[in-house]
Amino acid sequence: MNTTTAFAIAMSFGTGNLSPDDVAAVSPALDHYIKHTIAQDLWHRPGLSARDRSLITVTAVITRNQTVLLDEQLRLALDNGVKPAELSETIAHLAFYAGLGNALTATSVARQVFAERHIGADQLPTVDVIKLPLDEEVEDARAKAVEQMTGPAAPGLVRDTTDVLFRDLWLRPDLQPRDRSLVTVAALISAGQSAQIPYHLNRAMDSGLTREQAQEVISHLAYYAGWPNAFSASAIARDVFDRRDGKK
Amino acid sequence: MNTTTAFAIAMSFGTGNLSPDDVAAVSPALDHYIKHTIAQDLWHRPGLSARDRSLITVTAVITRNQTVLLDEQLRLALDNGVKPAELSETIAHLAFYAGLGNALTATSVARQVFAERHIGADQLPTVDVIKLPLDEEVEDARAKAVEQMTGPAAPGLVRDTTDVLFRDLWLRPDLQPRDRSLVTVAALISAGQSAQIPYHLNRAMDSGLTREQAQEVISHLAYYAGWPNAFSASAIARDVFDRRDGKK
Amino acid sequence: MNTTTAFAIAMSFGTGNLSPDDVAAVSPALDHYIKHTIAQDLWHRPGLSARDRSLITVTAVITRNQTVLLDEQLRLALDNGVKPAELSETIAHLAFYAGLGNALTATSVARQVFAERHIGADQLPTVDVIKLPLDEEVEDARAKAVEQMTGPAAPGLVRDTTDVLFRDLWLRPDLQPRDRSLVTVAALISAGQSAQIPYHLNRAMDSGLTREQAQEVISHLAYYAGWPNAFSASAIARDVFDRRDGKK
Repeated sequence: MNTTTAFAIAMSFGTGNLSPDDVAAVSPALDHYIKHTIAQDLWHRPGLSARDRSLITVTAVITRNQTVLLDEQLRLALDNGVKPAELSETIAHLAFYAGLGNALTATSVARQVFAERHIGADQLPTVDVIKLPLDEEVEDARAKAVEQMTGPAAPGLVRDTTDVLFRDLWLRPDLQPRDRSLVTVAALISAGQSAQIPYHLNRAMDSGLTREQAQEVISHLAYYAGWPNAFSASAIARDVFDRRDGKK
Repeated sequence: MNTTTAFAIAMSFGTGNLSPDDVAAVSPALDHYIKHTIAQDLWHRPGLSARDRSLITVTAVITRNQTVLLDEQLRLALDNGVKPAELSETIAHLAFYAGLGNALTATSVARQVFAERHIGADQLPTVDVIKLPLDEEVEDARAKAVEQMTGPAAPGLVRDTTDVLFRDLWLRPDLQPRDRSLVTVAALISAGQSAQIPYHLNRAMDSGLTREQAQEVISHLAYYAGWPNAFSASAIARDVFDRRDGKK
Repeated sequence: MNTTTAFAIAMSFGTGNLSPDDVAAVSPALDHYIKHTIAQDLWHRPGLSARDRSLITVTAVITRNQTVLLDEQLRLALDNGVKPAELSETIAHLAFYAGLGNALTATSVARQVFAERHIGADQLPTVDVIKLPLDEEVEDARAKAVEQMTGPAAPGLVRDTTDVLFRDLWLRPDLQPRDRSLVTVAALISAGQSAQIPYHLNRAMDSGLTREQAQEVISHLAYYAGWPNAFSASAIARDVFDRRDGKK
C-alpha cells in the first residue's frame, strides 16, 4: 500500500467516493455526524472489533449495492485486518445471500483494489479447497426443516440449498463458520429480511459470536443499513436471546 | 446482431459488465459457480423454458436496479426469444410494480441494445393498442377486495389501480396475461414483497402458469434476488398451493 | 437559475437523466404514462401540494438510491419551493433513516445542483443550530417504548436513538417537525418498512399532517416506490386511521 493511497483513505474515511468538503457543501450536519459520531465514536466502541465492523459494513454495502461506499470500505476492511481471502469468500457468499448482481458489482471494485495492492491469485482461495468437516447432525436438522417448510413450494431451491450452499459454499475454509454466519446475519439485517434472522443468528452464536457482539452488530448496522432495518432486527434478536435464555 | 456482439455475449454470459477473468481475479469460486452452477446447470434445467427464465431474470435485474447485469440480460432475453415488444411492455409494467426509476434505468440500457440491433418503432407497441377483453367478473372481485382493504387509506391509489393498471396497462396485448402475471410475481419475489404474492401467484396460475413453472421461478430467482427472498416466497407459495389443493 | 437549465428541466420532467425521446424509443406506453398520468395529472392533484410531493419524491428517490431521477427531482424540489436548507436537512435525516450510503449518493448530485444554482454556505444550516424545544413527555414515552422493545437486543442502538436522533437530529430547526415526520414516513413506505410506519405516521399527524395529505402521500409514492410498497403501506395506514378514530 503506497503513501498516497493511505493518505486518500485517511482523508475520505466515512465519505466514500466524496471528499468531506463535498459533504459539507451540501450538509455541514452530515459532515459532522460522519466525522464525529461515526468515524471517531462508532468504529471505536467496545463490543465489536474494527475487523468485525469492517466485515459487516462491507456486507451491508454489498447487500445494498451502494457503490459510493464500496471502494472505501473494501480498502478499510483490508486495513482493519480482513484478509484478501476472506473478502474473496465474502463476495462469493453474498452472490447467494444478496444476489448475483450485488456480488458482481462488488467484484468490479474489488478487482481494482486487489490490483492496486498487488493481491494476486496466491492470496485467494482456489475453486478446489479442502473443505471443513461437515457436522452431519446439524446439517440433517437444517435439511429436514427446509424440506418441511420449502420443499413443496420449490424442490429445486431445496436441492441447491443443500448441494450448493451447505455441502459446498459453507464448508469453504477461508471464511470461518463464525464469520460466514456473521456475514449472513449482516446481509439479512441490511436487506430487511427478518424471517431468516432467527436461524442464522442462532447459528452464528453457536459458532462463537457472543451476545455482546450480536448486539453491537445491530447497533453498528443502523448507520449503514438505516435505523428501520436495525429496529426490525432488534425485535427479532430480542426473541432469539429470550429463547436461548429459556424464557420462551 | 453482428458477430462482435454475439461473441461478447458468449464470453460474458453470467458475469454482466465484467469479464470472467475479472471475476476470477477476485473470487475463483464465484467464477466457478457462475460458469457451472448457473450458466451450465440452472439455465438448462427442466421446469421452465430459457425464454421464461430470461423474462424473470430481466424482471429481477430491473426490480433490483442492478445495472451490472442489465445489458447482458436484456441481450440474452432477445436471444432466448423474448420479443422486443414484450421487453418494451415488461419495462413499462415494472414502472408501476417496481417503481418509475427502475424502469427508467432499464430504459437507458434497453435504448442502446435496441439501437444496436436495429429494433425500431415498427417492432414496438404503440400507445393506442386494441386492448384485450376485460373479464368483468374477475375485475369486479379484484376492485372490491382492493376497495375494502385499501380504500379508506388511499382513495387515489384505489382509483389508479383500477383506471391506470387493471383497465389499461394489464389489457395491453403485447405481453400476454400469463407473462404479465409472471413478471409481476417475479418482481414481488425480487423485492421481498410477500404480501401481494398470493393474489398475483393465483392470478398467474389462473392464466396458465403451471405449478412446476411456479416452483422453478422461485428456485431460479434465488440466484438473482438472493436466497432470503426465495425462501420468503416459498413459504407463501406453499400456502397458495395448499389452498388451491383445498388443503386449507 | 439560467435559461438553459430551466429549459432542460421542462423538457425532461419525469424522465430523469433520459430524454422523452429515449423513453419513447423503448416504450411509447411508458413515455405516455410519464407525460400524462404522472406529469400532467398526478403532480397536480388536490390533497397534497407540489412542494410536499417534491419532498416525498426526493425522499423516495434517495431511499431507493435511484440515481437516474436524483438530478431531476432535486432541481424540481427547489423549483417547487423546497428550500436549500430543507433539502440539506432531508439528506442528513436520510443518512439515518435510509442509510449513510444513500445520503452520500444524494450528496454527490446535490453538490452539483447547489453549485450550479449558487447555493452557498449562507443558505445552509450550520452544525450548531439553536435546537427546537424538546417535548419531554413525548420523548419520555418514546424512549420508554424503545427501551422496552429494543433495549435487551441492542443497547447501543437505544442510546444512539435517544442521543443522536431524538435529542439532536430531530430538534434541528431547518426542517420542521411535520416535514421531518413526512420525510420519515415517505422513507419507510419507499423501503417497504411497515413495522415503523404506525409510530411515525401518528407522529406526523400529531405534528400537523392531515389525513387527506397522508392518503395522498401513499397514492403518490405508488409511482415512485412501486405499487407493492404503496399497498403494504395502505394496509398499515388504514389501521392507524381506525385507531385514531377510536374504532380499534
